[in-house]
Amino acid sequence: METDPVALTADLVRCPSVTPEEGGALVLLENLLSGAGFDCTRVDRNGTSNLFARWGRRGANRSFGFNGHTDVVPVGDESAWTVPPFGAVEKDGYLWGRGSTDMKSGVAAFAAAAIDFVRDTPPDGAIILTITGDEEGPAKDGTVALLDWMAENGEAMTDCLVGEPTSPNHMGEMMKIGRRGSMNATFEVTGIQGHSAYPHRARNPLPAMARLMDRLASHELDTGTEHFDASTLAIVTIDTGNPATNVIPAACRAGVNIRFSDAHTGDSLSDWLREEAEIVAKLFNVDIAVKVSISGESFLTPPGPLSDLVAKSVQAETGVAPELSTSGGTSDARFVKDHCPVVEFGLVGKTMHAVDERVEIDQIRQLKAIYGRILRDYFA
Amino acid sequence: METDPVALTADLVRCPSVTPEEGGALVLLENLLSGAGFDCTRVDRNGTSNLFARWGRRGANRSFGFNGHTDVVPVGDESAWTVPPFGAVEKDGYLWGRGSTDMKSGVAAFAAAAIDFVRDTPPDGAIILTITGDEEGPAKDGTVALLDWMAENGEAMTDCLVGEPTSPNHMGEMMKIGRRGSMNATFEVTGIQGHSAYPHRARNPLPAMARLMDRLASHELDTGTEHFDASTLAIVTIDTGNPATNVIPAACRAGVNIRFSDAHTGDSLSDWLREEAEIVAKLFNVDIAVKVSISGESFLTPPGPLSDLVAKSVQAETGVAPELSTSGGTSDARFVKDHCPVVEFGLVGKTMHAVDERVEIDQIRQLKAIYGRILRDYFA
Repeated sequence: METDPVALTADLVRCPSVTPEEGGALVLLENLLSGAGFDCTRVDRNGTSNLFARWGRRGANRSFGFNGHTDVVPVGDESAWTVPPFGAVEKDGYLWGRGSTDMKSGVAAFAAAAIDFVRDTPPDGAIILTITGDEEGPAKDGTVALLDWMAENGEAMTDCLVGEPTSPNHMGEMMKIGRRGSMNATFEVTGIQGHSAYPHRARNPLPAMARLMDRLASHELDTGTEHFDASTLAIVTIDTGNPATNVIPAACRAGVNIRFSDAHTGDSLSDWLREEAEIVAKLFNVDIAVKVSISGESFLTPPGPLSDLVAKSVQAETGVAPELSTSGGTSDARFVKDHCPVVEFGLVGKTMHAVDERVEIDQIRQLKAIYGRILRDYFA
Repeated sequence: METDPVALTADLVRCPSVTPEEGGALVLLENLLSGAGFDCTRVDRNGTSNLFARWGRRGANRSFGFNGHTDVVPVGDESAWTVPPFGAVEKDGYLWGRGSTDMKSGVAAFAAAAIDFVRDTPPDGAIILTITGDEEGPAKDGTVALLDWMAENGEAMTDCLVGEPTSPNHMGEMMKIGRRGSMNATFEVTGIQGHSAYPHRARNPLPAMARLMDRLASHELDTGTEHFDASTLAIVTIDTGNPATNVIPAACRAGVNIRFSDAHTGDSLSDWLREEAEIVAKLFNVDIAVKVSISGESFLTPPGPLSDLVAKSVQAETGVAPELSTSGGTSDARFVKDHCPVVEFGLVGKTMHAVDERVEIDQIRQLKAIYGRILRDYFA
């Protein structure tokens, strides 16, 4: 009998697994996968729960991995929901609830596909599922802990697919083969306080800040590269906190966020930011302190066997050739990419993190079919 | 017998007349002036005390006015003073205390000069003293109330001298014949909030704000005019209050203060600010709301008989030819100028509003001598 990914999604949605709560979700999956012949290990670290499951022998020649998470973001204003957020209500062709899209349906689809595949056509190789309870949180003891544990225990994936939602609007239209890098920088410009009637006796930090922010925001970092959208810089805040109109303030602060293509690295951009700050500091005779925090470098699994395999399966099941994109926010693929080729494919992410999060029921079945086809083709 | 301006200053300093407290200062002056033949009227309005005093008949052909204030700014941290702030201690050639410089010595000097002058050489004309208890505060019921009352009661000055401290360092070096205008403007730039990874889906108000502030601060309003220093624009604050590095904010605010010469008016500058905001709003496709508040237009009593009279007297008594300046902050001359020619001359203002405010005792006597000479020459 086929494993029903819709029922499994509903069971998972009923587990209130708001990060860092396990909520019963991983226990449910562990029982299900163990029963299907998977070798399961709970890899918990610093209060975060994670599940490692392997079908087939350790150290197999070829092992295909799926990665996903069962933790969900908070419900927010529960009174704004039209359904109980953990009720897994089915209506209007949708399954409703927190985590239904992001990404319990993805986990249910790859778990169901894997269970059915190994039962029907046991492959010559291994299938590895890494499922974390900390993707929405700090993500320090989630997929990273699983990958650390795997390395220590001789476990490895040849290739990996992360089952996060990837399509903006229509099933199958987009898969991810990498991500832009992300970094934050703060600038503190310090001058000399004074009376606004006598600006020549003070040294106002604000004109310098305005010039610096204008220079940064006006600069075109790149126009995109072969696989990446153009890098972007967003000024996120400029603050002074001076309530007095007759006082020139001594200092002000600003923050920028940069999402960058493979034309840059965190270091090359840090250098650029510091150079710009230095130019403006000299022009205006002020001090500018720059602090940089690199959240992640850009990465790419170049188009090749893995992306071909996934794209072919998506097209076969949906009739749509997925775009190979590197757009969007961060995901655990940034950790997996240090270990093996990784791509991401999942369903439409429209209602992720929103009130009344819901997933089209047909999409869950379609996703399981795609994942099943990927496994068949991979081990063919 | 000569009226001693030093003893009178000391008596006034002992009156704790922190705005809006009368503190006994105006009562003291009223008694003194009444005894010397001045017709005194207390012109109190909305809890503010003011004194009008006239020697000679109402509606005289020529009437010379002195304007000043007896209110003082707060003491601040009293423990930082080396003397009791209202003790009027005399030591090291100085009279110490809050208001000793700003401007009880000025009031004492012109009151003493006027009393002695009318007693020794009664003029063919009138002398009018307007002394307010609200120059350091909101200044809405001070000199304005006195001028309103005078207009309603057929009282008028032909010319007026405001006795505020005018010299930065040395007695006699500067008098004031006008002031720059002052205005404040606030800008609120509104865009569309969004995720900093997708700046093209949002509309970030901050690059527009940076450009606008850079344009305003870089623009040379003028290089000064015949009687005015260059106009200045100071950005005093830029604020967003966005704590999230992954969020593009919807709006931000900034404030600027402009001090302007007679090359501009509050209206012409308001028009310029609105035009600049409109240019930037179009460039960045954002909304920019501009609010303008004009604190005072620039004004000038062009060099002429009154400034000649004062300058001549200053030079005769000090040996220094005073510069005719329009620099500095605001004063009640901005109200008087709507009624008659007005200039300002007083002593060195170095310790105004500071801890250990003090006045050189010789300067008080010198100031009385200058004011006495002005009266003699005026009525000669």
